[in-house]
Amino acid sequence: MYRLIKTEGKARRGEFTTPHGTIQTPAFQNVATCGAIKGGLDASDLKAVGAQVMLCNTYHLHVRPGDELIRDLGGLHKFTNWDGPILTDSGGFQVFSLAKLRKIKEEGVSFNSHVDGRHIFMGPEESMRIQSNLGSTIAMAFDECVENPAPYEYAKESCERTTRWLIRCKEELERLNALHDTINKQQMLFGINQGCTYDELRVKHMEEIAKLDLDGYAIGGLAVGEPKEEMYRIISAVEPYAPQDKIRYLMGVGTPGNIIEAVSRGVDLFDCVMPSRNARHGQLFTWDGIININNAKYERDENPIDTQCDCPTCRSHSRAYIRHLLKADEILGLRLCVIHNLYFYNNLMSEIRRALDEDRFSEFRDKYVDLLDTRI
Amino acid sequence: MYRLIKTEGKARRGEFTTPHGTIQTPAFQNVATCGAIKGGLDASDLKAVGAQVMLCNTYHLHVRPGDELIRDLGGLHKFTNWDGPILTDSGGFQVFSLAKLRKIKEEGVSFNSHVDGRHIFMGPEESMRIQSNLGSTIAMAFDECVENPAPYEYAKESCERTTRWLIRCKEELERLNALHDTINKQQMLFGINQGCTYDELRVKHMEEIAKLDLDGYAIGGLAVGEPKEEMYRIISAVEPYAPQDKIRYLMGVGTPGNIIEAVSRGVDLFDCVMPSRNARHGQLFTWDGIININNAKYERDENPIDTQCDCPTCRSHSRAYIRHLLKADEILGLRLCVIHNLYFYNNLMSEIRRALDEDRFSEFRDKYVDLLDTRI
Repeated sequence: MYRLIKTEGKARRGEFTTPHGTIQTPAFQNVATCGAIKGGLDASDLKAVGAQVMLCNTYHLHVRPGDELIRDLGGLHKFTNWDGPILTDSGGFQVFSLAKLRKIKEEGVSFNSHVDGRHIFMGPEESMRIQSNLGSTIAMAFDECVENPAPYEYAKESCERTTRWLIRCKEELERLNALHDTINKQQMLFGINQGCTYDELRVKHMEEIAKLDLDGYAIGGLAVGEPKEEMYRIISAVEPYAPQDKIRYLMGVGTPGNIIEAVSRGVDLFDCVMPSRNARHGQLFTWDGIININNAKYERDENPIDTQCDCPTCRSHSRAYIRHLLKADEILGLRLCVIHNLYFYNNLMSEIRRALDEDRFSEFRDKYVDLLDTRI
Repeated sequence: MYRLIKTEGKARRGEFTTPHGTIQTPAFQNVATCGAIKGGLDASDLKAVGAQVMLCNTYHLHVRPGDELIRDLGGLHKFTNWDGPILTDSGGFQVFSLAKLRKIKEEGVSFNSHVDGRHIFMGPEESMRIQSNLGSTIAMAFDECVENPAPYEYAKESCERTTRWLIRCKEELERLNALHDTINKQQMLFGINQGCTYDELRVKHMEEIAKLDLDGYAIGGLAVGEPKEEMYRIISAVEPYAPQDKIRYLMGVGTPGNIIEAVSRGVDLFDCVMPSRNARHGQLFTWDGIININNAKYERDENPIDTQCDCPTCRSHSRAYIRHLLKADEILGLRLCVIHNLYFYNNLMSEIRRALDEDRFSEFRDKYVDLLDTRI
């Protein structure tokens, strides 16, 4: 259940109560694709970086180790040892981006696994059953992700199908939650707004799904290559039609600046692989901008990555040591960088919340929105 | 300084006091080749696995990031954030096993770096200067590692050169320790016994180096492919000639069974890459023997790796989860396995010490010497 605590402009300070704890919003969801954060972080490390929510990928876990195995072992919480909220995506995005030879019909999508090539069919009911087996806190509706730019007619048709799929998802999840051996009988469902870059489709779709009284509403199909101004425009266009009393989640976004802009447009929840992916390339977020730790100038630098940072990496290790580890291909280098970047993201959200609590989010935004995305 | 607390047969319970803390012996040294444990463990993780000593490789650190850089940043302790004892090897073993186009002369060895091919010369003085720059607790003497089997004449000649090199090491380290800007002015020196598989050469060499009153004595050039019975025979042959009041270190050994056998022959100190290397292949040490976590039978196993183990991995994660992580190529899988294996090794030493304290090492040996090396 979402509770709006206060607003500043469109920006919202709230909290979202789930069967696995309350999430203070705005919040960042930490991506653990296969049930583990890339870079070697486990559940205790997630606590150490200030994470509130873990996000796992339904498609990956369905393919390996299998959702039925995870159900038999007591669900994702027990499997991963993370006791906080877990959101699982629907598998839709991976089906449309990773899988081979896919074929879309009204029932769902046929495709071949990216791991072993075996044939898989996934529709709304299958996605709900898999997510119910995983026992996540929040299930995402199964939707079609259309690549931008898309022809208007196809976007419209896909959008309508996504609505019909959402209704089927809701019915199936209600059925599953009522079964006696379901792991999480209070599994929540978020719908996903689609409509490509057409404001009119986006608004119409949001109006329709808003009627379904879901636990939350996501905006999907953005941050897939379109200019960021277009993303901001679409958020602003659909926001008035998203229920005020429900949490709003912008999927797959983004840079610190993107997140600040989206918060200022009324978004509460985010997820992104950027903190861990960029860490792999030595791109580290700091309160002064983005540094590349591989640069020669850090070779003898005894400072932490960010002198203002209190993360486990910055409390213990120098830029020189971390740079050496990356150069020597030591896994520890990657791990220390991922810890730092994820701490930065979770801390960024905490600072956004504090700014909202203290009625100075507008100043915070002006100070950091460009700065944090700047490579220094 | 080594203090012998008690003995049981040849086995010795003791402690070794260094400028960076006292090591309870018998002890295992945890290998951090480039200043980091393979598998993503940092200094705080080393504490968590019960490590007493970290071992770093002089050759690797000389090549990258460079020992002068580490000196300028305050030495290895500051660089890695590990405040306990650090032993550095001499670089000799790597020069003879990794480097290309090497040429041995009385002065030392010429070779090309395995990283960038650049020409490097390393002799006793160079090795001491590098280790002094690193500021380790214990420096190892620069020796020649001869491959087994070797002709007697060559083994003898090499042995004599190694003695001459050791004298030069001692003189150079005394000079370096007296310099005003040396990081660790109390750097200790261990000599290394060589002589291939010739008992007579081994004994003669140990007698000679024992006269030099070094801080410790290592047995080198073993565990390089010879049958383990040969290794045990050589340890037994040279042990009476190693000073009783000095610590004894068996280099690069070994399996849990090897360690127990060597302790029973009077060895105090060990190092081995086996715990981290085997972890990579899912080979995990337990008090019931060695398991391969990749086996299908662990697919749905909710038990920890070892039900008798109290390591961070076993306290939090199931065999099923760890197996899944390895199958999915998640770095976390490797990390959790390395944590377990290193904890096992350090805990093994702790159990050996406890058995010695309680005068039941002989029973301990009988119970575990074969069991722990058995694949189950």
